[in-house]
Amino acid sequence: MKPLAVSLGDPAGIGPEVAIRALADFRPRGGAILFGDPGSVPKAWRPPLKGFVWRPTAVRGWKTGRPSAASGETAFQSVTAAARAVLSGEARALVTAPLSKEAMHLAGHDWPGHTELLAHLAGKRPDEVGMLLVGGGLRVFLVTRHCSLKKALALIRPALLDQALDVCVAGLKRSLKVGRPRLALAALNPHAGEGGAFGREEIEILRPWVRRRAKSRAFTLAGPLPADTVIVQALRGAYDAVLCLYHDQGLIPLKLLAFDSGVNVTLGLPFFRSSPDHGTAWDLAGKGSASHASMLEALRLADRHVS
Amino acid sequence: MKPLAVSLGDPAGIGPEVAIRALADFRPRGGAILFGDPGSVPKAWRPPLKGFVWRPTAVRGWKTGRPSAASGETAFQSVTAAARAVLSGEARALVTAPLSKEAMHLAGHDWPGHTELLAHLAGKRPDEVGMLLVGGGLRVFLVTRHCSLKKALALIRPALLDQALDVCVAGLKRSLKVGRPRLALAALNPHAGEGGAFGREEIEILRPWVRRRAKSRAFTLAGPLPADTVIVQALRGAYDAVLCLYHDQGLIPLKLLAFDSGVNVTLGLPFFRSSPDHGTAWDLAGKGSASHASMLEALRLADRHVS
Repeated sequence: MKPLAVSLGDPAGIGPEVAIRALADFRPRGGAILFGDPGSVPKAWRPPLKGFVWRPTAVRGWKTGRPSAASGETAFQSVTAAARAVLSGEARALVTAPLSKEAMHLAGHDWPGHTELLAHLAGKRPDEVGMLLVGGGLRVFLVTRHCSLKKALALIRPALLDQALDVCVAGLKRSLKVGRPRLALAALNPHAGEGGAFGREEIEILRPWVRRRAKSRAFTLAGPLPADTVIVQALRGAYDAVLCLYHDQGLIPLKLLAFDSGVNVTLGLPFFRSSPDHGTAWDLAGKGSASHASMLEALRLADRHVS
Repeated sequence: MKPLAVSLGDPAGIGPEVAIRALADFRPRGGAILFGDPGSVPKAWRPPLKGFVWRPTAVRGWKTGRPSAASGETAFQSVTAAARAVLSGEARALVTAPLSKEAMHLAGHDWPGHTELLAHLAGKRPDEVGMLLVGGGLRVFLVTRHCSLKKALALIRPALLDQALDVCVAGLKRSLKVGRPRLALAALNPHAGEGGAFGREEIEILRPWVRRRAKSRAFTLAGPLPADTVIVQALRGAYDAVLCLYHDQGLIPLKLLAFDSGVNVTLGLPFFRSSPDHGTAWDLAGKGSASHASMLEALRLADRHVS
């Protein structure tokens, strides 16, 4: 079996250490190719990695715990090379340790995050890919991602919902092998709008949209359901994933259920890609105290779902 | 010790049965006075209630499982009489089973819910009271309550935050005996706005407001903190309560942690008032299958905090 491609993320953050410790705990079938700066991993931590292939990046000059152009460039080159290894068929899936938007910006690469950069590398538009967050028995798909709540409200229109649903259904089938996804749409307003008394988006946009799209044999779609109960219902097994309309609607329950072990799966790419759902955590970098549980889950998910 | 005043809520909903079963499990010190229609409680369920005083309401004509003018009028008269018993000093605290906004409306009483009706009966403005939700080790206070998300965004201004904070601090001290409340404000936008990239409310409104109000000896105030992490921090003991900017920001985590046992405590009233955080659940009424865990917690909280 082919190896996994693992990018170590920003060398100045916790990426390299959580990746190395996760790989020491869990050896993927076919092994792994590591993309990053070997200098970001203390020598004492390397013995368990014997047998893994390194593809080192050559950019130096970064300092642990601090975003810089050098750290951002290292992260950028690592993930780019790792993505190409998967696209070329050398590796079977991509697992990425966290990088920093700020450091990438200092290095002249203006991507909001991994998701958009990977979409670009794979020749996809940003709206052709989507973020599925997995953890604690819950899967949430974000209809809008990294933008203000005000902007999210303005973006919630049938065309965007159509795109999100299509990416989510195809991705759940392809990446997570869910046969006929059972989905629920979380409502925007309290009590799903309480019949219009607490907002009209459910009546004017969400309910008509669900009615139109629910007539499919490829999936089931319920909603809009009050956000505070649909999450509990999904957790009890009623749904394979919940479509969340804004970032915190999905992230609040996910972090509560899986603070240290949530995984971000990008749907819509021509390959499987998972990552921990946390950031570079500058304040913890180099101390060896950061939890690698999330990176471990990201590796396991990729290993399990891609042969 | 004085008894608790317990209103049975809408007689056609699950209020009477959860109240009766909760009182059968837990006998408050000083007993309880029951306000409602005894006909809403099957005779077979009444024996454990021996010793409790009934204050029956006389409105009939309601049907189990259906909101009507008669059921709404019964609920309205019950809670009004119960609130007066506490205001007059006959009872020491008020515990209310759920009523229905729709049924109250049919009976000609247009209150958004218990909170606003009780504020009125106690001579308070709606903005002088607030909703604190308690459950699963978490306390969340709602800065905005029952309105659309769009309206909540427009309401979030320093004056409203000031009012909410004052009600929350005074209420935590008075009602829940928290000495010097440690509070955190949840942010509005993802990642607390990510330095302005995902929304500017944190920079323009929330951060300056916290800076101004945090200089108090009566409480501590942190934030604005990313909503998906502040909840976890509060749960781990860092804060006594989280100020949530909109309904679902507080209710999503609360329902996840305490789906069947969340309690709503009204702060800012001249007396203690608690209630289950669920509704009349028409579909479950009369079947005896509704969980009374939340009502039980509401009784326990009132009994513990008011002597």
